[in-house]
Amino acid sequence: MTTRKVVIIGSGPAAHTAAIYAARAELNPLMFEGEMAGGVAAGGQLTTTTEVENFPGYKEISGPELMMKMRDQAEHCGAELLMKTVHKVDLSKKPFMVYWDKETVAADCVIIATGATAKRMGIPGEEKYWQKGMSACAVCDGALPLFRNKPLVVIGGGDSACEEATFLTKFASKVVLLVRRDELRASKVMQERTKNNDKIEILWNTEALEAKGENLLTHVHIKNNKTGEEKDIEANGLFYAIGHTPNTSFLEKQVECDETGYIITTPGTANTSVSGVFACGDVQDKRYRQAITAAGSGCMAALDAEQFLVD
Amino acid sequence: MTTRKVVIIGSGPAAHTAAIYAARAELNPLMFEGEMAGGVAAGGQLTTTTEVENFPGYKEISGPELMMKMRDQAEHCGAELLMKTVHKVDLSKKPFMVYWDKETVAADCVIIATGATAKRMGIPGEEKYWQKGMSACAVCDGALPLFRNKPLVVIGGGDSACEEATFLTKFASKVVLLVRRDELRASKVMQERTKNNDKIEILWNTEALEAKGENLLTHVHIKNNKTGEEKDIEANGLFYAIGHTPNTSFLEKQVECDETGYIITTPGTANTSVSGVFACGDVQDKRYRQAITAAGSGCMAALDAEQFLVD
Repeated sequence: MTTRKVVIIGSGPAAHTAAIYAARAELNPLMFEGEMAGGVAAGGQLTTTTEVENFPGYKEISGPELMMKMRDQAEHCGAELLMKTVHKVDLSKKPFMVYWDKETVAADCVIIATGATAKRMGIPGEEKYWQKGMSACAVCDGALPLFRNKPLVVIGGGDSACEEATFLTKFASKVVLLVRRDELRASKVMQERTKNNDKIEILWNTEALEAKGENLLTHVHIKNNKTGEEKDIEANGLFYAIGHTPNTSFLEKQVECDETGYIITTPGTANTSVSGVFACGDVQDKRYRQAITAAGSGCMAALDAEQFLVD
Repeated sequence: MTTRKVVIIGSGPAAHTAAIYAARAELNPLMFEGEMAGGVAAGGQLTTTTEVENFPGYKEISGPELMMKMRDQAEHCGAELLMKTVHKVDLSKKPFMVYWDKETVAADCVIIATGATAKRMGIPGEEKYWQKGMSACAVCDGALPLFRNKPLVVIGGGDSACEEATFLTKFASKVVLLVRRDELRASKVMQERTKNNDKIEILWNTEALEAKGENLLTHVHIKNNKTGEEKDIEANGLFYAIGHTPNTSFLEKQVECDETGYIITTPGTANTSVSGVFACGDVQDKRYRQAITAAGSGCMAALDAEQFLVD
C-alpha cells in the first residue's frame, strides 16, 4: 500500500481550499468527499443554501454553484477526489490509516474538514414524519410539491432560522417561526428581513412538543413557555434550524475535542492534539462558521501540513 | 461630528471582506482605501499580481480583477469607500479618532487591515536607480519597455522571488536570481518551476552589493558569500523580492505589535490589545499571508466588531 502525503476528509469550502493548496504544493492530496456523510451531499452545507452574497469575490452566487467551482478548481490543480465516506481512522501511529468501504489508505498527514450537521429535537412524531413533512433543511426540501401553498413551521431563532423562514415564503401559504426565547439571535439584517416579511408570523416563547398527522405531517402541537398555553397549529412542513453537531464521531476521540464534540485546534493554526493531523472549517469552529472563514482555515491546514512534511 | 460604528483602514481582501460583513450587519462601515498608502494602490498587494489561481472559487483571475469584484461587492452591500490615507489615529479614549488630510472621524470600532509592504535593501545606488531600473514589484513594472529583451536580476529566495523571476522571463532576455543561501525557501511547485525555466539562472550564496549605471541601471555588483568572489553582472532591471514590512507606523505603538511591527491579535480572533480595535490580513499575519486567509480574517474582524458593539 502506498502512503499518501495528505488525505483530506470533507468537501466544503475548507476541504476544497485545503485541496487546492495541497495540490499546488505538489502533495498529491486525496480528498474523501463523503456520500451523504453527516446527512449532507458532497459540497457540504453550502449545497443546502440558495443565494450566497457574502463570499468575497461573488456578489451573488448559489451555494451549489460556488461549491462546483471549488471542486472543479481542486481537480484542475491536481487533487484526487473520491466520493466515499471515511468511517474510521487510526491516528495512533504513523503513517495514519484511513478506512472506507472495505478499503484502507495510509497517510502522512490527515486534514479533517468534515463540518457540522444540523441538530434534531427528538420530539414525539419526529421519527414517523421525518421526510414526510419534517426536515432539517428548508433550502434542500422547501421546493417540494408537498409544501406548495401550505402552512409551514420553522423552529429556531438564529440566522439559519430566519434565512430558512424567508426562503420558505416563496412556496408556503404562510410560515410560522417558533422562537423559544423572546428575541432572535440572528444578525440585525436578518432580523429585520424576517420581521418585515408579511408571510412570516413569529411566535415568541414558543416550543414544539409534538409532530402530528396521518401518513404525512398535518399539525404541530406547540406550547407557550410563558403562559403555559398549548395548542395545535396547522403545518404541512416542520423545519428544524436549531444548530449543529460537529461531524467527529468517526474519530473515536483520537483527536482532542471540546465538550460538544468540536475539534480543538491551537488557535491561529490548524494543529490538533495529534501531530500531523490538522482540522479546518466548521468541525473546529463554532464561533464564525462562515464559508470564507472555513476557506481561510482550509488554506491554513494545507500550509501547516506542507510545513509539517518539510520539517 | 457623528460617530461611525465601524471604520476600516485598508483595501485588500481582509478590508473588503470586513466591509462586506459589516455592511450586511447594517453597521454602515466607512473604509479608507488609501492613496498609494504603503506604496501600493487601493486594492492592496493583489493589485500587483497577475494571475491568481489559488483563491477558492476562481480557477484563474487577475489580482486587480478579483479586487475590483470585492470592491464592487462591498459597495453593493452598503459600505462607504473613501480613497484617502489615514495618517493618524487616537485610540487612547472612546470614541476612537481617525485622521486623514485635515479631517477627522470618530469611531466606536476600528478595523486595521493595512497590510504589509515590500522591503528594500538600502544598497549603494538604490536611491539613484529606484524606478530607473530598480523596483520592488516585478509584476507591476516588469512589462515596461525599459526591460524588454534585457538581462534582469531578482533578489530573494521565497515564493515571491520565484514568481517574479518566472514572470519576468516573459519580457527579459534572461533573468538572474540572486539567492543569499544555498537553497530556495519557496514552495516545491515554485522551486521546480523556477529551476526548470531555461531563461532563469540561479546564483546561489550570492548577494547584491551595489546598483550601477548611468542615467539608468546597467549593472549589479555581486558577491559570492562562500568564495568571496565579486563581479559586475549586466542588469537593466533589479527587482527586490525580500520580504515585507507591516504598515503599522501610523498607529504610533498604540496597539501592541511584535518586534517586527506586526500587530499582535489574540490567536483565533481579530482582537488586538485595545478593546474595540481589530486587526486582520497581512498586517497581523506573517505566517500564512494568502488572499484567502486575509479574507477569512476580515470576516472574523467584522463579526468580532459586531459582537463588541452588541455587548
